[in-house]
Amino acid sequence: MKNYVIGIDLGGTKISTAIADLNGNVLNMHTLETEAKKGKEKVLENLVLSINSILDVSKVDLSSVKCIGIGSPGPLDVTTGTIISSPNLPFKNFEIVNELKNYFDIDIHLDNDANVATIGEYILGAGRGSDNLVYITVSTGIGGGAILNGKLYAGNTSNALEVGHITLDPNGPVCGCGNFGCLEAISSGTAIAKKANQALQSGAVTSLRNYTTVTSYEVFKEYANNDAISVDIVDNALNYLGIGVANIISTLDPSMVIIGGGVSKVGDILFDRVKSIVKRRNFKVMSDNCKIVQAGLGTDAGVLGAVSLALLKSRD
Amino acid sequence: MKNYVIGIDLGGTKISTAIADLNGNVLNMHTLETEAKKGKEKVLENLVLSINSILDVSKVDLSSVKCIGIGSPGPLDVTTGTIISSPNLPFKNFEIVNELKNYFDIDIHLDNDANVATIGEYILGAGRGSDNLVYITVSTGIGGGAILNGKLYAGNTSNALEVGHITLDPNGPVCGCGNFGCLEAISSGTAIAKKANQALQSGAVTSLRNYTTVTSYEVFKEYANNDAISVDIVDNALNYLGIGVANIISTLDPSMVIIGGGVSKVGDILFDRVKSIVKRRNFKVMSDNCKIVQAGLGTDAGVLGAVSLALLKSRD
Repeated sequence: MKNYVIGIDLGGTKISTAIADLNGNVLNMHTLETEAKKGKEKVLENLVLSINSILDVSKVDLSSVKCIGIGSPGPLDVTTGTIISSPNLPFKNFEIVNELKNYFDIDIHLDNDANVATIGEYILGAGRGSDNLVYITVSTGIGGGAILNGKLYAGNTSNALEVGHITLDPNGPVCGCGNFGCLEAISSGTAIAKKANQALQSGAVTSLRNYTTVTSYEVFKEYANNDAISVDIVDNALNYLGIGVANIISTLDPSMVIIGGGVSKVGDILFDRVKSIVKRRNFKVMSDNCKIVQAGLGTDAGVLGAVSLALLKSRD
Repeated sequence: MKNYVIGIDLGGTKISTAIADLNGNVLNMHTLETEAKKGKEKVLENLVLSINSILDVSKVDLSSVKCIGIGSPGPLDVTTGTIISSPNLPFKNFEIVNELKNYFDIDIHLDNDANVATIGEYILGAGRGSDNLVYITVSTGIGGGAILNGKLYAGNTSNALEVGHITLDPNGPVCGCGNFGCLEAISSGTAIAKKANQALQSGAVTSLRNYTTVTSYEVFKEYANNDAISVDIVDNALNYLGIGVANIISTLDPSMVIIGGGVSKVGDILFDRVKSIVKRRNFKVMSDNCKIVQAGLGTDAGVLGAVSLALLKSRD
């Protein structure tokens, strides 16, 4: 009987691996160094080692494993299981799925960070039972994914839910993507920090001056202390985040929007604002029927997402 | 053998009915008065008459019909086949599907105007072969629908693709829905006409003054004649329409965006602008792989959409 799945979160510094039963109960989880600098053969060797050792420690034979899910930074070619390139990994057009299949003759599925996080929330996190959900991560950048009718929605070029790059202020700040006024250029942690540092440089009177380094964390801290500059920056970022979420709801009519990522950890400040904007701007029938909640998976979100990818695929 | 489907476009003034084979070839099409003012029994009688007479004239027996598709203005409850209410029809919570099943014991499917138009473009119009497409109608209002992975995407409350109500200018003009700066409040035919009439009332110097009535049609006409006021109004409307389409592409990553509705008939003026904005604002991989085209179905779009609904459902 094939009663298990394995999930792998492949990162630039570490490989996290977990084995779970088909209900998503994790038996064992461990972490190895990626050793990316030693080249792709070494990374592959570590991936193989990681899978073999989680099988050993769990006393599970490969023949009992239904499939393996791998989450990786992209861009990827999901259909061929290829990492096209990745800033922190020594891969270029690396057919990771085929390479691993030389060692493990079972189904292996690859998907990118944002999609894996979305699936993780759907299968094991805050989105269990919601067959139409959107996941948004607000962190250094802003990205997302969607489960529509119970399946991951990838889009035509596997780039669906690039929600960080919807334009919300046509003449707004320039974005890393080259466009102006993208949600990411206004509401990401990076955008918040950038605006704060610009205010500091322009000589503004602000309690942010008490810090040697100002990131979005300090801006939210001084927002809570009623520093006028911080209030202004946070208000602007959260108002546009609320509009972004409202627009996603008008477009996709989901039953749930899950917000994760570093910035979401500020909690109520963010969620109360987003909910109030959605209530104000969306059709009542849609806002009344769409929960807006914090991501349910914590520090192990990456590897639990990979386990969830394997679980979702094992249902197909 | 069940070789046929029937499509019905139920409107406030007329009922259009068509019968087609399973390849979408229309055998016969005809139109009756709805006679809405005579009450719901009369409308039902006309619907029954319409179906019976299209069967008669086509020499097709009901036993050869796979299913019937009905397009109707909403709001509807699609799952129970109920017209909840409709401005121009004498129905309130009218279970049209069940009522018709008393006369015709076959599968009958109901959906709203925007979804039926979307399915029509997918099955018989400009979107044939595109399994991820978005249809947008720019007319009195702005609405839409989407085919995702080859199926109509309805959303959690059957309100997906309410794209007329995405906010693009947080402090923009008030919309009929109560929100401010919705795409519909900026780029619909109604919004264009409203802005032109406001300019006229404020005493602006414009060639629009030569018309007794100014609708969006006259504004586009004077745009072509380089009237400064008309150019300003059309530029603003089309720039925001382009941003709206760009945002839909960033969210859904479709292979095609089909634009229909009265305003779309201006042709290149609209499509060239939208395409140029999408090219400027979207990720290259998405804009390069997404066609933006005019709707393919003309005056019979309603009834051909209903035929397409029946064809799509007959495949399930």
